[in-house]
Amino acid sequence: ARTYRITALAGDGIGPEILQVGRAILDAVAKRMGFGIQWQEGLIGGIAYEQTGDPLPPETLKMAQDSDAVYLAAVGDFKYDTLPREKRPERALLGLRAGLSLFANLRPVKILPQLVDASSLKREVIEGIDLMVVRELTGGIYFGQPKGIFTDAQGSRRGVNTMVYSEAEVDRIARVAFDLAQKRGHKLCSVDKANVLEVSQLWRERVTAVAAEYPDVELSHMYVDNAAMQLVRWPKQFDVILTGNLFGDILSDEAAMLTGSIGMLPSASLGASGPGVYEPVHGSAPDIAGQDKANPIAQVLSGAMMLRYSLDQPEAAAQIEQAVEAVLAQGYRTGDIYSEGMTLIGCQEMGEKILAML
Amino acid sequence: ARTYRITALAGDGIGPEILQVGRAILDAVAKRMGFGIQWQEGLIGGIAYEQTGDPLPPETLKMAQDSDAVYLAAVGDFKYDTLPREKRPERALLGLRAGLSLFANLRPVKILPQLVDASSLKREVIEGIDLMVVRELTGGIYFGQPKGIFTDAQGSRRGVNTMVYSEAEVDRIARVAFDLAQKRGHKLCSVDKANVLEVSQLWRERVTAVAAEYPDVELSHMYVDNAAMQLVRWPKQFDVILTGNLFGDILSDEAAMLTGSIGMLPSASLGASGPGVYEPVHGSAPDIAGQDKANPIAQVLSGAMMLRYSLDQPEAAAQIEQAVEAVLAQGYRTGDIYSEGMTLIGCQEMGEKILAML
Ligand SMILES: CC(C)[C@H](C(=O)O)[C@@H](O)C(=O)O
Ligand SMILES: CC(C)[C@H](C(=O)O)[C@@H](O)C(=O)O
Repeated sequence: ARTYRITALAGDGIGPEILQVGRAILDAVAKRMGFGIQWQEGLIGGIAYEQTGDPLPPETLKMAQDSDAVYLAAVGDFKYDTLPREKRPERALLGLRAGLSLFANLRPVKILPQLVDASSLKREVIEGIDLMVVRELTGGIYFGQPKGIFTDAQGSRRGVNTMVYSEAEVDRIARVAFDLAQKRGHKLCSVDKANVLEVSQLWRERVTAVAAEYPDVELSHMYVDNAAMQLVRWPKQFDVILTGNLFGDILSDEAAMLTGSIGMLPSASLGASGPGVYEPVHGSAPDIAGQDKANPIAQVLSGAMMLRYSLDQPEAAAQIEQAVEAVLAQGYRTGDIYSEGMTLIGCQEMGEKILAML
Repeated sequence: ARTYRITALAGDGIGPEILQVGRAILDAVAKRMGFGIQWQEGLIGGIAYEQTGDPLPPETLKMAQDSDAVYLAAVGDFKYDTLPREKRPERALLGLRAGLSLFANLRPVKILPQLVDASSLKREVIEGIDLMVVRELTGGIYFGQPKGIFTDAQGSRRGVNTMVYSEAEVDRIARVAFDLAQKRGHKLCSVDKANVLEVSQLWRERVTAVAAEYPDVELSHMYVDNAAMQLVRWPKQFDVILTGNLFGDILSDEAAMLTGSIGMLPSASLGASGPGVYEPVHGSAPDIAGQDKANPIAQVLSGAMMLRYSLDQPEAAAQIEQAVEAVLAQGYRTGDIYSEGMTLIGCQEMGEKILAML
């Protein structure tokens, strides 16, 4: 039986408590399905900074590189807000993405029928939503050079960042999105700002060229401002949304919040080969850390994505997803998704219920 | 009695029909209030391209510069989609903004109680929303250099745009936003991506510095991805939102669509001195052009903003706004905001009803 080496990165805030739940469930499903998971634990984020002076210590990156996949919880805490930028917990995420060449960020947005009322949108607008945001993650304005704060001859300063995409960068993320669209609803909407930005013009041109390889996928293009509107107006028009790093940051969060329950949403970040990183969409919620109040479901579902995309265990992934749905169907809820008539439980108990269901 | 010189730019699609309504109402209110409006008509957008080969002919820009304000409808049509970028109707907007140094774009987002049901958001989330997006309009990635599509030695291409803000650019737009916040709810939320972008770091630093001049305004900062979420989750938390050109493009459209009735929303674009441009938030809707179906209200309310911000006629502005509300209270609706039990009317008749109400 195969044994996978997984790097577990708990991070800050609620990270440790939700990761513990996620790991227990992965262990259980591995045992049932007859494969093994060998965990290795690394430091990341504020806790890593405190213990080593570096939010992403080189050993952590090395450990991640040498594993089959990375199972990450969340980083960040108000108490690190005054640190210099390069020491802040979030920088570790950027370092991990660059260090593992994770150019493709996949964010599925779905809503369970039982949770429709948590949305700020009307039932008919949000019910049945099922879209996937594919965000380019190692290029664009996040990494483009030159960047910095520069002082001119007169002594006044200018802040500068550069949004840049090469043809090859667009082509490879486009292929990821088209491949996904082929396995889903066969529709891909590429989002850019080609009426203003040259970088978007090249983006649109290349996405259109790659589309020729996927005759069974219907391609459309949308400007980012319109996409921000259409997500609010009628999100069910979308299947796969493909976009760059910055637009993807904005639109994937907007799309996630449409559901009203971001404590439920997982994500995957993938490279061409090598380990992927699996983590919840939500943050580290330091305000409720250590109180057993966190919702571990996004973490658990991130584990399912890991099984599907990195470990080639789709059957095990499906078992986890079904267990989560079953527990929700029984009326169990953490505080963030609680509504009247349901049974309020904590993070740990939610984990136990899912485990019992497996 | 004072006479104002106003440049009227009808543009494309529904532009001419809604502008006609807006002008008639401005003429009527001017007559009542005892001031004069001298109209001068200029070409802009696709129609300008067709007649002169240029979407923003130099004469139009000159005419705009020599007036007290510019009253613009909308530009664009599918039929110009195949034109080279520099000839497309939307380029005229960028040219007008640069040519008149319109660095401040003001977009109020409000919803009339009668139209709450048009929103895709739940009544309790959207009812009573009243926020103002202040978008920087002549800087950032829209105009930053270098930009273009460049070919490297190996023959592969890269698209490049530059997001840049100087201290002075941030300071002046921040003052506009703080001034507005002082006249409104005394709350300002500055939106950036300072955890990733150096340009945002400078932005945040300068906005914080300018805040010292406005001790009665409560300043907060928010990352753009979070702002995109918070607008969906609980938009009523916002009073004035201050942000850069690109983030403002995305967030102001998202905020507008929250109301479900963008046919109602006006905008103003202002410089340090000289004429401002007043136009609806919605586009040229070529699919319904010439059918008397368009909603002229955003155009009419843009006229009210012009009276308030450029012509110093707040009393006349209020009269228009009250007339619009009264007509809606009587149940008259254009198609885009129609709901059962209301009276469906066309663009022209909506204009007549508002006129009669004045
Ligand atoms: C924390 C931040 C650097 C990060 C990003 O902007 O990518 C986050 O918002 C995300 O989407 O993962
Ligand atoms: C048409 C386009 C150039 C323009 C912009 O991006 O500024 C539009 O979206 C707007 O918001 O006025």
